[in-house]
Amino acid sequence: MNLIQIIMYVGIFVFAGTGALKARTHHMDIFGGLVIAFATAYGGGTIRDLLIGVHPVNWVNDYLALGLVVSATIIVSFFDSDQIRFKRTIFFTDAIGLGMFTAAGIEISINNNINDGYAVVMGVITATFGGLLADVLCREKPNLLKRGELYATVCAIGGVIYILLKHLGIEKNLGLFICVCIVVSIRILSKRKRIMLPEI
Amino acid sequence: MNLIQIIMYVGIFVFAGTGALKARTHHMDIFGGLVIAFATAYGGGTIRDLLIGVHPVNWVNDYLALGLVVSATIIVSFFDSDQIRFKRTIFFTDAIGLGMFTAAGIEISINNNINDGYAVVMGVITATFGGLLADVLCREKPNLLKRGELYATVCAIGGVIYILLKHLGIEKNLGLFICVCIVVSIRILSKRKRIMLPEI
Amino acid sequence: MNLIQIIMYVGIFVFAGTGALKARTHHMDIFGGLVIAFATAYGGGTIRDLLIGVHPVNWVNDYLALGLVVSATIIVSFFDSDQIRFKRTIFFTDAIGLGMFTAAGIEISINNNINDGYAVVMGVITATFGGLLADVLCREKPNLLKRGELYATVCAIGGVIYILLKHLGIEKNLGLFICVCIVVSIRILSKRKRIMLPEI
Repeated sequence: MNLIQIIMYVGIFVFAGTGALKARTHHMDIFGGLVIAFATAYGGGTIRDLLIGVHPVNWVNDYLALGLVVSATIIVSFFDSDQIRFKRTIFFTDAIGLGMFTAAGIEISINNNINDGYAVVMGVITATFGGLLADVLCREKPNLLKRGELYATVCAIGGVIYILLKHLGIEKNLGLFICVCIVVSIRILSKRKRIMLPEI
Repeated sequence: MNLIQIIMYVGIFVFAGTGALKARTHHMDIFGGLVIAFATAYGGGTIRDLLIGVHPVNWVNDYLALGLVVSATIIVSFFDSDQIRFKRTIFFTDAIGLGMFTAAGIEISINNNINDGYAVVMGVITATFGGLLADVLCREKPNLLKRGELYATVCAIGGVIYILLKHLGIEKNLGLFICVCIVVSIRILSKRKRIMLPEI
Repeated sequence: MNLIQIIMYVGIFVFAGTGALKARTHHMDIFGGLVIAFATAYGGGTIRDLLIGVHPVNWVNDYLALGLVVSATIIVSFFDSDQIRFKRTIFFTDAIGLGMFTAAGIEISINNNINDGYAVVMGVITATFGGLLADVLCREKPNLLKRGELYATVCAIGGVIYILLKHLGIEKNLGLFICVCIVVSIRILSKRKRIMLPEI
């Protein structure tokens, strides 16, 4: 397992944790928590795999995936959550995960003969549609679609830059690093300056 | 690109526009509008492709698809909507789209070894499940499932007739034209006469 | 058609009936009832097929599937439901269906090179995600994820035992029978004793 895979699994773990936390606010039981955690962590990649035709989808047969989601759910269930502090901590890890997932989604798409434009679309889907799926399952208004902080937009910007760097022949890990840095920076900037997309 | 493809893309454009309009009523931002527009326009065909095993799904790598949805969304966002008049205009274009999508869904299904009965089912799914998906994402009660105007039923009738004409050896474009005419007529008739399916 | 297939179709019929009943409580029309009945009966198997890469999904081209769902929906629509008595009757048939679907999902997964752990996951998905999908379409809070009677947990227990028996070389039909018995027993026991999973 190389460095990138390790960081990806860290991202999965963080996403699963935020999913489990959401399940807690909805007073679900442990099983419901597992489903929401799994949906948050792997939902985006699953939707991407279904759309581009990778089958079975990526996490099937990967016990580490199951183990990470189960551990994250159990940890969150023991957690005496001081939600506000927790949210501040999770903001950074989530932003890092966003960048990683976008880049990973783009790589996988390109390897499956998806063109550049749609590879960015698939990168954004990988990073953001897990949360969307979790919101639908929790019967919440999907956060992703509401007006608010830049989220999917940030992934799209990071993704476009990642693809450009790739065409410029920049080394893959460096490209990934730059993509993550850009995503994290814009996330922070847009939160601080309250930058939002206009309402449709 | 032949005439049928041109009309199909017009249908996609109209469906994307109605999706973007729905997003407006939910006060989403531009990104949310794009997602709902895309779901409305391509959701039905995507679900059909997943069920019958076409992969990648039809719109992947098609920049025109993306372009049409983006343009429709942008146009709707500039639109100072007088919704009632707009709805009247859209009723006809939507009905034409329904007929086109049903026939197209049936053709694609038959080309993928789906039998006649399920080809009609797939035609109805192609025409109507995009709106269903958009409703779920907007957390609306799916219009398609509620008692009201004939909608899916009209597609099913048009689809059955399209298949019958096909077996009678009627030329494809003529069959498509008849299917669309029937769908539009029954849509208008059922709206005027307030014909509904019985409640279950 | 062998005994197992017959019992499976009985399970499908029962699940479709519960779906149609749910549609009634939401005042849908006949078409909405059909969609919810189909989603309840075949939704879990469809999601499993999509995830493990079986295509087209299992029910496509199977007229018996369509016939069973349509009959169940029509019967429910004529039914003058005394819901409480109905619920008691359906509890047992539903529990039997749960066991059958879990075992069938596991068999299909193993035949598609899914490992034991994920085969159990797919068994649980087969048995329970149809109801989840129906809940999402009806805009209900998914029953499966809420704290309440053991449901998915029971399938997981039955599934693990089914896999263990399989590895011990127990004959398939006997394994299936034991799996169903265990699922039914724990369902009854957990309902009587009000056993629940802890909240996350």
